[in-house]
Amino acid sequence: MASDQKPADLETETTETTKAVEEPPRPPKSTSLDKCVTVDVVLRVVLFAATLTSLLVLVTSNQSKHRPVIGSPLAVVEAKFNHSPAFIYLAAAASVTCLYSIITILASISVLLKPAFNTSFLIFFAIWDVVILGVMASATGAAGAVAYIGLKGNRHTSWAKVCNVYDKFCQHLAGSIAVALFASIVLVFLIVLSVLSLHKKIPK
Amino acid sequence: MASDQKPADLETETTETTKAVEEPPRPPKSTSLDKCVTVDVVLRVVLFAATLTSLLVLVTSNQSKHRPVIGSPLAVVEAKFNHSPAFIYLAAAASVTCLYSIITILASISVLLKPAFNTSFLIFFAIWDVVILGVMASATGAAGAVAYIGLKGNRHTSWAKVCNVYDKFCQHLAGSIAVALFASIVLVFLIVLSVLSLHKKIPK
Repeated sequence: MASDQKPADLETETTETTKAVEEPPRPPKSTSLDKCVTVDVVLRVVLFAATLTSLLVLVTSNQSKHRPVIGSPLAVVEAKFNHSPAFIYLAAAASVTCLYSIITILASISVLLKPAFNTSFLIFFAIWDVVILGVMASATGAAGAVAYIGLKGNRHTSWAKVCNVYDKFCQHLAGSIAVALFASIVLVFLIVLSVLSLHKKIPK
Repeated sequence: MASDQKPADLETETTETTKAVEEPPRPPKSTSLDKCVTVDVVLRVVLFAATLTSLLVLVTSNQSKHRPVIGSPLAVVEAKFNHSPAFIYLAAAASVTCLYSIITILASISVLLKPAFNTSFLIFFAIWDVVILGVMASATGAAGAVAYIGLKGNRHTSWAKVCNVYDKFCQHLAGSIAVALFASIVLVFLIVLSVLSLHKKIPK
């Protein structure tokens, strides 16, 4: 059987060599690693959109109300996101993550075009994604905790709720925090993808 | 060709079998991957100690004070960690991370003893560490934000500070949050270690 197959193999090889000489080099076929990089680019675009949305919704949350204040019966009182350090932290974290996502989208696209740098970029992405996840998750937690006090108040510390007055402000905060939470989950998926891509490169 | 190789293969197999029978199995030499697993075990023990400390400091933060309350001029008022959902979340996150660290210490030690499962455990550790980091970081952020309001108050929302009254309570909170932050940083290092260990397994 083996001796029967040999001439056929030789023929195929000769045809392939002729083809290689005649035809210009074709780009390699899409591998599972290329697919991982494509998913990586898509997730990073989603991350960019999510952080930008979270940031815009947060910074446009300002709301003015006419309320009686000591000394002036109908003063204008404003609710701004920068009245609380937790919301400033969320805005800073969303800005940093948004900028980071732009840089890594470009880097991921460059990996798609030049797969030789694949492993170095995977390591770089995985490590920085972890740091950015830590920042985004803590900012989401901080903003969520303050927003919860604003919504429900805390009778033990006599902190009154404010969301019954500043409804639009609180709706913006809730939207921004929900999208920031979504961005954190996207970051978790990005790190898992990097780890699985690294795993695929290890020979069995 | 296939028939020529067979006797050579058989010879090699026979020699290997004889060697296996003659020599007792030697322990493999310490590699850089073994060192990574040892550092992993040490970091996980540190994570266990940190989360347990954070949890114990948080749950022992209760403080009672004699304060004038409407209807009773010198009532006893208590400050407890479970008066705020953010601190309950930190306690839950620290408990889960503490339990998780015990499981992964045992798993890491089993990897040291049986290096065959190394890659599977690295993947498992890296993915779960990321999820646990998300939980710990957000809990630290939430507790930190509420504790900051307790320390400084917020004049825009008329939330008064409480740390001037409940000093011991706030000191416990600060300690617990600082150690939780340290645990989050240890988790970042653990994930980076897993990623670098996976990188080492990729042939150059």
